[in-house]
Amino acid sequence: MSVTAPRGFRASGVVAGLKASGRPDVALVVNDGPDHHAAAVFTGNRVEAAPVTWSRTVVADGRADVVVLNSGGANACTGAPGFQDTHVTAEHVAAALGVAAGDVVVCSTGLIGERLPMERLLGGVDAAHAALAADGGGEAAEAIMTTDSVPKTATAARDGWSVGGMAKGAGMLAPALATMLVVVTTDAVVPDAAALDSALREATRTTFDRVDSDGCMSTNDTVVLLASGASGSTPDAGELTEAVTAVCADLARQLVADAEGAHHDIAVEIRGAASEADGLEVARSVARNNLFKCAVFGGDPNWGRVLAAVGTTGAAFDPATLDVSMNGVQVCRAGGVGESRDLVDLAAREVHVLVDLHAGDETVTVWTNDLTHDYVHENSAYST
Amino acid sequence: MSVTAPRGFRASGVVAGLKASGRPDVALVVNDGPDHHAAAVFTGNRVEAAPVTWSRTVVADGRADVVVLNSGGANACTGAPGFQDTHVTAEHVAAALGVAAGDVVVCSTGLIGERLPMERLLGGVDAAHAALAADGGGEAAEAIMTTDSVPKTATAARDGWSVGGMAKGAGMLAPALATMLVVVTTDAVVPDAAALDSALREATRTTFDRVDSDGCMSTNDTVVLLASGASGSTPDAGELTEAVTAVCADLARQLVADAEGAHHDIAVEIRGAASEADGLEVARSVARNNLFKCAVFGGDPNWGRVLAAVGTTGAAFDPATLDVSMNGVQVCRAGGVGESRDLVDLAAREVHVLVDLHAGDETVTVWTNDLTHDYVHENSAYST
Repeated sequence: MSVTAPRGFRASGVVAGLKASGRPDVALVVNDGPDHHAAAVFTGNRVEAAPVTWSRTVVADGRADVVVLNSGGANACTGAPGFQDTHVTAEHVAAALGVAAGDVVVCSTGLIGERLPMERLLGGVDAAHAALAADGGGEAAEAIMTTDSVPKTATAARDGWSVGGMAKGAGMLAPALATMLVVVTTDAVVPDAAALDSALREATRTTFDRVDSDGCMSTNDTVVLLASGASGSTPDAGELTEAVTAVCADLARQLVADAEGAHHDIAVEIRGAASEADGLEVARSVARNNLFKCAVFGGDPNWGRVLAAVGTTGAAFDPATLDVSMNGVQVCRAGGVGESRDLVDLAAREVHVLVDLHAGDETVTVWTNDLTHDYVHENSAYST
Repeated sequence: MSVTAPRGFRASGVVAGLKASGRPDVALVVNDGPDHHAAAVFTGNRVEAAPVTWSRTVVADGRADVVVLNSGGANACTGAPGFQDTHVTAEHVAAALGVAAGDVVVCSTGLIGERLPMERLLGGVDAAHAALAADGGGEAAEAIMTTDSVPKTATAARDGWSVGGMAKGAGMLAPALATMLVVVTTDAVVPDAAALDSALREATRTTFDRVDSDGCMSTNDTVVLLASGASGSTPDAGELTEAVTAVCADLARQLVADAEGAHHDIAVEIRGAASEADGLEVARSVARNNLFKCAVFGGDPNWGRVLAAVGTTGAAFDPATLDVSMNGVQVCRAGGVGESRDLVDLAAREVHVLVDLHAGDETVTVWTNDLTHDYVHENSAYST
């Protein structure tokens, strides 16, 4: 049920003709209230797409009535004309729904550096408006797919209220955030947009921000959270954050599992870090090491490459006390040779790499993928 | 002629049986003086191999009489026993040559996390000692190869004196430094080791430190510069630095050209940077972007991925004024669409990506490679 699992939302997904494949490519998610609280987090990339620039402004006042999303074009690096295209799209959606353009979040994904075919897009908006339905979350999730092999949705039902979400993203997955468009909805009654913002930032910090498939940060990443208040139930801040985090974590794992060309999902867990920042730096360094990622693809438990990646960081640790385990086998003990690497079985999709820094009490996990022939193929043969 | 092009040096390369392939794997480079000045730069990786730890101490006093190098094993992450192996190797070389062990630089390359077969290694040292010759530079260059497809040597002849060098390295190429072992020799008369150190640091800063094949920093990188003074010629500091830089630049380009699995050599040139540090940060970010590197492999002039990489940096620039050219075609103008990407021809091995930040007067170039099926194959099928 995706974003329409919570009450107070309608959604749709239609074919506008932006994608050469003829697959659905325009989606709407409408918040029918009574509340219209909104919060969002965006890419940290300074080269941000026009819809990101627009949508930052939209959610700045804590209110949004609708999210319009398109695949088939990122509208990034398109200059002032591209920003105008986003503006026109928002005005068109606003007119159809009788809301203010300034309450329309716009998200785009696809190839960078090309203008959107606006006639098709606006026709798609009209069709998506006509198709809006209280159970349209599944169609919306399909319409935002790019190289995703499956639509990604998640829900968390709580006592009298719920959270629902959809995500797209299968490449360019990197921190802050992955190339992802995510819409999360809730029918919980939330005191104000600031409370929603807190819940979203806490949720993304430990979920989407810790997915690092290929170290490449996108120009379009957007995660939007909308609250309708339609359930009449008022969870406390902790309950709201927990449920939003659960949905984001579910979607984040689906992104890793569907990453372009990946054969393995790798959890890089750093224990014994002196701080969360240290743990994150080390985990990212390992997760981004191409040689390590190739080794996992080849079924080679090459812990030397893990240590070489750890050694490039500024985190607190003593090289002589580092421990590394792969899928439960401690292949490196005290910075040197541990159990035989022949004992490690990397055949399964899920791989767990555990590094103990012995420098503190913090634990951080980052999820990544292996580096495969298929990754190279997908990203060399097709433009994105 | 490699390291034996300058007068005052002998070298050799022999088969010790460390490599399963039966190829040469132990090399010696001896400085017969009259001077024995030495300088070196090492990996910035905090997980450094035993020979790196040893050799830092050796060159600290500015003197070295000989360099012993082995392929077939990195002696990294081998703990105290691994350090003892390096110490024993140095003592063995010292005894054979009648020098102090503390003047023996040791370099190792190969798989991380395995002890060296010391009996074979020491036998190889004896054979290498017996084989020392005034024209042995070529044999030495062959004996340090790992996945290199060709030996790498360079010379620079100046007025009455010269510089010679050899290098190995074909993967794990990254800044500070690549996985490289490099020995550079000169018969110039140099006032002291400090002068030699200055020349070496200036040379590596703009050569090896700007090679970034795959973003992975090694545990063993070592560049050693030895001066014999045997020419009797005394170049000034600028002349020495120029010649050492020329040899290092030549070797660095050979490393890029022979990088594991690469189909393209990519020069990432950043112009208009506000500072050298800014230019370097941006160049490295582009050079390490897997999506961009895959696109080059696929012949796709995907400038959007270049901009996305630029946008992740903290360098001074305005996204709305960025220009990007690929092989002379300005595909991005003022942050938006420029010439048609169809005009860009990426068929040749050499690719030139030019980014103008329009923020200052500094220019920095980093050399990298594309990300290919062969890279994944070489680094997944074989342990290194």
